[in-house]
Amino acid sequence: MTNIDKIRLMMKDNGVDMYLILDADYHKSEYVSDYFKARSFISGFTGSNGSLLVTLDSCYLWTDGRYFIQAEQELANSDIKLMRIGVKGVLSLLDFIAANKGVLGLDGRCMDAAFVNSLKRKKIEVKDLNLIDEIFTDRPSHCNEMAFELDIHFSGESRESKIERLIANSPNSIQIIEHLDAVNYLMNIRAHDINHFPVLFSYLVVSKDFRWYFADEKKLPHDLKGKLLAEGFEIRPYENYYQDIASIRDQTIVMDFNKISFKSYQEVYLHNVLFNKASYADMMKACKNEQEIKNLRAAHIVDGVAMVKFIYKLKKEYANYDEYTAGRMLDEIRLESALELSFNTIAGYKENAAMMHYSAKKESAKKLDKDGMLLVDSGGHYLLGTTDITRTISFDKVSKRERKLYTTVLKANLNLASAKFLKGISGVNLDILARNPIWQLGIDYRSGTGHGVGYLLSVHEGPHGIRYQKSNLRNEDTKLVEGMVVTDEPGIYLENELGIRLENELVVYKEFENEYGEFMNFDVITYCPFDRALINKKLLTKAELKQVNDYHKMVYKKLKNHLDEDERKWLKQECAKL
Amino acid sequence: MTNIDKIRLMMKDNGVDMYLILDADYHKSEYVSDYFKARSFISGFTGSNGSLLVTLDSCYLWTDGRYFIQAEQELANSDIKLMRIGVKGVLSLLDFIAANKGVLGLDGRCMDAAFVNSLKRKKIEVKDLNLIDEIFTDRPSHCNEMAFELDIHFSGESRESKIERLIANSPNSIQIIEHLDAVNYLMNIRAHDINHFPVLFSYLVVSKDFRWYFADEKKLPHDLKGKLLAEGFEIRPYENYYQDIASIRDQTIVMDFNKISFKSYQEVYLHNVLFNKASYADMMKACKNEQEIKNLRAAHIVDGVAMVKFIYKLKKEYANYDEYTAGRMLDEIRLESALELSFNTIAGYKENAAMMHYSAKKESAKKLDKDGMLLVDSGGHYLLGTTDITRTISFDKVSKRERKLYTTVLKANLNLASAKFLKGISGVNLDILARNPIWQLGIDYRSGTGHGVGYLLSVHEGPHGIRYQKSNLRNEDTKLVEGMVVTDEPGIYLENELGIRLENELVVYKEFENEYGEFMNFDVITYCPFDRALINKKLLTKAELKQVNDYHKMVYKKLKNHLDEDERKWLKQECAKL
Repeated sequence: MTNIDKIRLMMKDNGVDMYLILDADYHKSEYVSDYFKARSFISGFTGSNGSLLVTLDSCYLWTDGRYFIQAEQELANSDIKLMRIGVKGVLSLLDFIAANKGVLGLDGRCMDAAFVNSLKRKKIEVKDLNLIDEIFTDRPSHCNEMAFELDIHFSGESRESKIERLIANSPNSIQIIEHLDAVNYLMNIRAHDINHFPVLFSYLVVSKDFRWYFADEKKLPHDLKGKLLAEGFEIRPYENYYQDIASIRDQTIVMDFNKISFKSYQEVYLHNVLFNKASYADMMKACKNEQEIKNLRAAHIVDGVAMVKFIYKLKKEYANYDEYTAGRMLDEIRLESALELSFNTIAGYKENAAMMHYSAKKESAKKLDKDGMLLVDSGGHYLLGTTDITRTISFDKVSKRERKLYTTVLKANLNLASAKFLKGISGVNLDILARNPIWQLGIDYRSGTGHGVGYLLSVHEGPHGIRYQKSNLRNEDTKLVEGMVVTDEPGIYLENELGIRLENELVVYKEFENEYGEFMNFDVITYCPFDRALINKKLLTKAELKQVNDYHKMVYKKLKNHLDEDERKWLKQECAKL
Repeated sequence: MTNIDKIRLMMKDNGVDMYLILDADYHKSEYVSDYFKARSFISGFTGSNGSLLVTLDSCYLWTDGRYFIQAEQELANSDIKLMRIGVKGVLSLLDFIAANKGVLGLDGRCMDAAFVNSLKRKKIEVKDLNLIDEIFTDRPSHCNEMAFELDIHFSGESRESKIERLIANSPNSIQIIEHLDAVNYLMNIRAHDINHFPVLFSYLVVSKDFRWYFADEKKLPHDLKGKLLAEGFEIRPYENYYQDIASIRDQTIVMDFNKISFKSYQEVYLHNVLFNKASYADMMKACKNEQEIKNLRAAHIVDGVAMVKFIYKLKKEYANYDEYTAGRMLDEIRLESALELSFNTIAGYKENAAMMHYSAKKESAKKLDKDGMLLVDSGGHYLLGTTDITRTISFDKVSKRERKLYTTVLKANLNLASAKFLKGISGVNLDILARNPIWQLGIDYRSGTGHGVGYLLSVHEGPHGIRYQKSNLRNEDTKLVEGMVVTDEPGIYLENELGIRLENELVVYKEFENEYGEFMNFDVITYCPFDRALINKKLLTKAELKQVNDYHKMVYKKLKNHLDEDERKWLKQECAKL
C-alpha cells in the first residue's frame, strides 16, 4: 500500500474528502528543516513551493513556474497530477478545493490562521487532523545542537529592553508570537534548528503580567536558563505550547493571523478577544540599532573580502571550474569566516543565469569558458549579521550586448542607491528608480527590487521592501525608516540567453531635517567591485560615473588591508577610476 | 441684526446648536457659481477653501495656509474666529464639532454623503436644515445662457454609446450621478452655468429600464430636446430631482458617496440597497478616445500659439507690464480662440511666485523688471478640449542660482515625461521620477506632480493623478491606462525668493506588448518652449539634453505656421539646438 493509499484510508475513517500536505513547520518559516518536509516525503517533489492535495480518488500538486520542469521529472512515476500555478485554465488550490466540495483535512499546526480562515470564508469545511505522523515515521530528527545567547555586543540591545518595548506597545494585551525570527530576535537567542535560519524552535507569550518562553530546555545553556529565570521568564516545554495557550481566558490577545498557526487560533479564539495585527517585533527587528549597523558594516567587509578572493581566483582559473564547483569554491572561502551560508549559493552561467533561482547540479553543471557571464547570488550568517550579495562576472571575452545590458542593470542599481527622499516614502514609491532604466529597454524583471535582511536571522525579512505592486501577503507600503536594511537587486533575465543581477545592501539613514520634513537617504554597505570589463561608461551619466568611481574607491579602501598582495593589486585595478 | 444673529435665531427655533456653511453647490463642483457662495456672503471671507461654523455664542472659520493672510484681512471687522488648518493646537472642523457636542445643522444638498456619514460615525447628531435661503435673498442669479450639444466631431462618441457602456457596467442597478463633469460628459452637453467649468446643472439617473435627465428645460435647445426624447430620455425638471429619486423603491443603486449629496442619500437609503462606488463614467471620461486626443493636440497648438505670442511680446516689452497686466495680456490673446479660461490665470513675479496659487491684485501687482522670473500658470477651454500649462519666464538678467533651480525643475519634468512603464503602474509609483531631482537638493514641492484634465470640463479631473501619497479623498493609485491625460508639473518654491513650475500635459499611450506585459509611455501634447536663458545645459545628462532639443524641434514645427514673421524668428531661436 502506498503512503497516499494509507492517507486515504485514514481520511475515510475521519470523514474527510480531501487532505492538504505542505512542507511547513509550526512557525511559518521560509526555510523548513527536513523533519517537516512531509509533502516532499509523500509526493517525491522536492521544490520549495508545493501543495499536495489528496482526494479519495486522485492526487494533485500545485507549484509555480520555477519548478514545472523539476516537478514533471519528480512526479513522472507517480499518479500525482501537476497543477501549474498561473497557467491559463489551471484552477488555484483554493478554487479547486471550493469546487471539489466536501470536508478538507489539514494539520492545523502547519497552516496559518489567515489561510484557513480564507478557506472557511469560501464555505469550505475544515478538519484539523494530523495524518502524517503515522506515515512519516522514519523522519529526520530535529537538530540537537545547543542554542546560544547573542551577546549585547552583537545584538546592541538587551532582551529586557526589547521585551519592555514590545509590551509597552500593547500594554493591555497578551502578545502571542510564533514566527521564529521575531521570537529569537526578542530573546537574543540563536541556534541551529533550521539550515540557513539560525534559530531555536520556540514560542513567546508575553504580557505585562507574565513571560512564557516555550523551548526545548535541554538546548538552553545552563547560565542562559538562569538569566531567563532571573528576568522573569517561565521556561515551558515546547510541546506544551498549545495546551498552555488554551488556558488563556477573557483576555485581549494581539497576534498576526498570517504568522500564527490555525491550531493556535483555534485554541484561543473562543475565549478571548483577538486583534489580528503584525507583531511590533517585526518593526523593532527591521530597524537595526547603531550597534547592529556597526556590526553589519564589519560583516560586509569580511564578506566582501571573501567575494573578492573568489572573483580574483575565478577570473584567473575559470577554465578549471563549472557553475557547481565555482559555487563550492566561494562557499569554502566564505565559510572560513561565516557561521553558515544565509542561503544556498546560486551560481548560473550563461543562459542558466536567466533562471532567477537556478540551482546548479554537480552532474549537469555548465563548464565555465572565456565568454559569457556567471551570476553569483550568495551570502553568509555572521555573529556580526547576515549578508546577501549578487555579482555578475565576466571572463576573458565580453560582447557589446553584454556590456549594454550589464551597464543598464548597473544604472538601475545606482539610481535606487542614490535616492534622497522625504520620510513617509515606501518601497512602492521608490521601485521605479531601479526599474526605469530596464523598462526603457522594454525588459522587466519579474521580482521585487529589494527585501529586508535579518540580523543573523532570515535573509529575507519584512515588513518593508522595494516593489512596485502591493500583494496581499506583504506590506510593501511600509514606510522606510531609519536603520532599515534593504537589498537593491535589479536584474535582466533573457530566457535561453543570459542573466544579470547586481545586488547591494542599503541602510536607510536620516540625512537632515528642514522645513519640508525629514530627508532620508541610503548608504551602501556591500563592498565588492562591479565588473569593470562589463561597464560601458558611455552609457552612464556623469553623476552615475562618479557614483561608481566613488563606490569603487570606498571598496578598495575598506578591503585592501585584508587581502594578499596579488589580490590587492587586482582589486586596485578593478577599482581604478573608470 | 447681523446675518449670523438671524441664523442663530433660526438655529434655536430648530433645536440646532451648530450650523455649518460652505461655498458649495448641489454637485460637489470644484468651481462654484456665485449663487452658491453662501459662506463668502455670510462671513466676508472669499477664499476658495473655507468652512464657517456658527454656534449659539460664537463663530469659526476654517481655512488652509494659502488663505491665512487673506482671511485675517477679510475677517478683521467681524467676530469670526479664524481656525488655521494644519497649525499645531488647532482642532480640525470634525474634531471641533465632535468636542462641542450638540446637534449640527447643515444644508444636506451642499454636503456630500460620505462627509455627513463620517460626522455620524463620530456620534454627531445631524439635522438637514436650510437656513441660508431666507437670508441670502439677494443672491446672484443663475446663468441663463443656453446649453449646447457637443458634436460627435468633438466628443468622439455618441451619447447613446456612452450611456450603453455605462449601463453595461452595472446592468442590474440604477446609477445615480450628480457630479456635473460626469453628467455633462455622458450627455455630450455643455453650458455656461459655472465660470471655468462649462457645464449645465443637471442630474442623471439611469438603468436598463429608464433614463431620467434632470435639467432646466428652458436651457435646452429645441432640437436637442427632440433628440433626447427620441433616445429614450425623460427630461425632468431640475428642481424635482430629490422628490423623484425618493420614489425609487426596492432597487440596487450604485452611487459615489463622495460625490452624492447627503440629501440624495437620505432620500434613497432606507428603501434600496446602495453600493458606494465611483461612477464608471469617471473612468470613461478619464480615458480620452482617439478623436478627443486628436482634438486635444489641435487645441494645444492653438493654445501654444497664444503662449508663444504672449512670451514673445512680454520678453520685449516687460518694462510696460506688471504681474496683473501681464496676466490680462495673456488672457486677451488666449480668448481670441478659447471659449473661456479653464481657471483664473496665475501670474506671480519673483517672490510672489513662491505662493503656488498666487492671485495678483491690480492695485498691488509687482512691476516686471529685467531680473527675476515670472511664473505663469494658465489654460483655456476650447471645443477641442481643455488646456493647462505653466511656464516660468526670465527677462534680461538671469542669475546662476535661477538657472540651477530652473534646470532642476526641467529635469524633473523631463524625467516623468520620458518614463516607460508596464501596465499596472499608477501615479504613486511614478511620482518619484519627477520629485527625485528636486529632493536631491533637499527641496520639496507641497503638491502632487500631476492631475488629470477634463475635455471641456473641469481642468482638474480624476480618478488618476501623479502623487506619492495616497489621500483618502483621492484615488492616486488608479492605474494609468491608455488615453488618460495627466499634467507633469513639478516645481520649486522658495519663500520670499522665487517660484518655478514647468507644466506640460501628457497622454498615456500603449507602446508595445511583449512577454513582460504591455509597455506604456507618455506623449507630450503641450507645445511651448522652455526658457533657454534659464537652462544650464551642463546640469543635463546627454539624454535629457536630447529630450529638450527634440521637444523644441517639435514645438517649432507645430507652431511655426501660425505665427507672424517676428514671432517665428524668435521661436526659431528659442527652439534652436542647445
